[in-house]
Parts: sequence; C-alpha cells; structure tokens
Amino acid sequence: MTTSVNMKWSSGLRFKAEIAGRTVELNSAEKMASAFTPMELFLVSLAGCTSMDIIWILERQRQIIHNLEVSIEGIRRREDPKYYETINLEFILSGLNIRENAVEKAIGLSKDKYCSVLAMLNDSVKVNITYKILDESKPMARTTSKSS
Amino acid sequence: MTTSVNMKWSSGLRFKAEIAGRTVELNSAEKMASAFTPMELFLVSLAGCTSMDIIWILERQRQIIHNLEVSIEGIRRREDPKYYETINLEFILSGLNIRENAVEKAIGLSKDKYCSVLAMLNDSVKVNITYKILDESKPMARTTSKSS
Repeated sequence: MTTSVNMKWSSGLRFKAEIAGRTVELNSAEKMASAFTPMELFLVSLAGCTSMDIIWILERQRQIIHNLEVSIEGIRRREDPKYYETINLEFILSGLNIRENAVEKAIGLSKDKYCSVLAMLNDSVKVNITYKILDESKPMARTTSKSS
Repeated sequence: MTTSVNMKWSSGLRFKAEIAGRTVELNSAEKMASAFTPMELFLVSLAGCTSMDIIWILERQRQIIHNLEVSIEGIRRREDPKYYETINLEFILSGLNIRENAVEKAIGLSKDKYCSVLAMLNDSVKVNITYKILDESKPMARTTSKSS
C-alpha cells in the first residue's frame, strides 16, 4: 500500500501539502495562521495513530466509551537535530464501567503490534503513555493508572 | 522546548486535534472529507521538515530558488504494524543557475544534522531522497541527480 503527498513551497518557510484534494498548510514557528510546523504534525500523527487503535480495540472488547481526550507533549533536544527526546501521551477515557485491564491491553496492543508511527521510532525517543478512566456511573473519577 | 497538542474523539475513528487554536481533523481511510489519516500526516511532517531545511540552507548559500515542489510516497508493510518500509522523497527545484553541489549539501545537512523527524526514525524505514534541478535560464531541464 502506497500513500502519496505533493507539497509546494509558498514563500518564506511556508508550504502547502496536498493529498487527494485535501490540503494542509505548514510554516515554521512564526505567523502560523492556520498552518502547522512539521514537528506539531508529527505529534498529531502519533496521537492519532495510537488513539484510533485504542478506540478500535476497546470497542471490540465491548467497552462503552463516551469520550476520549488525548493530550500529547513532546520535549525537544536543545542541539540539532532537535527531535523529541521525550513524548508524554495521556488518554482520558470516560464511559460506563470501563475495565482498567481492557485499557491496559488496548494501549499495549497499540504499542507493540498496531501503531505504525510508534513502530518507526528509534530508541532515542522515549514515549510515556498514561491514562485516566472517568466512570460516569460514579460521582468521582475512578482511577488513574500508568502504562509505559 | 515543549510542543503540546490536544485531541478529541468525534465518532467512529474521527478525531480533531488542536494546537494553540489551530485545528486539524483526522480519520481512518473512509469518508475523509477534509481529514487526514495519521500516516498521511506523518509524510507531510517528514516532507515539511526536510523541505524547510533545504530552502533555509540554499538561501544561506545564496542560491536563487523560484519554486520547490516535493513529492513523497510511503510504501507500507503488509503485516502489522504497517509502517513505511520505504519512503521516496523527491525535490524539484527551479530557479536560476542553482548549483548541484549546493543542493547535495543542503540535502545532506538536512539528513545528517537538522531534520528532527528523520532523526527519530529507526533503520527499518529506508528513506530515499532524489532531486531534479530545472534551470530557468536554459530551455531544457539541466540535470537530474540522486542522493541517498
């Protein structure tokens, strides 16, 4: 399976990428308007990849998920190349009676088997994954757990 | 330096990511509308990263670049995780008297020193970079070269 992207330079460090008629704009860190930096889009790509796996796996495990919010932060090296040395990814799941071991299993399968973006990273990038489960059938958040 | 993204699940495998008020939508491969798959955004991220390096370096080398077009294709594995085993990246530069060795040098510096996305990839991802230079002062394309 092949995925193709065409990209054209606009001016400065601005570019417009196009995939099958859909477009996204890129820029460096100044005057962003609706544009993204390449490193921002990398985080979106990684967050999207793991999140789709987790939703797909949890639904197969008949877990009732009402909401999933994801926050991801990447901490860059000071020297070139300024890649992310550490990436912290947190999933906040809410729903009814979500089983903690189902969430652990979904995260584990994404990391070890399904997530194509994670599978391309080398060992100099440390990815920490944590999650919170909010049980809507109870008044307080039920649990906070870690997975790595 | 820290970069942060928040992402929310919409429905199905659709998500909306937000960075400082800017948004991008993701989906799996069906009913894309304006959305992107995570693996598409990964290619955009990689193409953007190298292209910004190349424009920035060539301008410092006082090369006159009128246009830069980039095509990138990623060929995925058949088995899970379906990461890109091969990525082909081609730059088409047009301008006046662009020096081939300046382009080679810019590509080399991006690969070996500056591109943060490339620096995070492991050895199972083979990235091939080629380029074409179109000299606008001459009636025919001047040269096509390869770099790897």
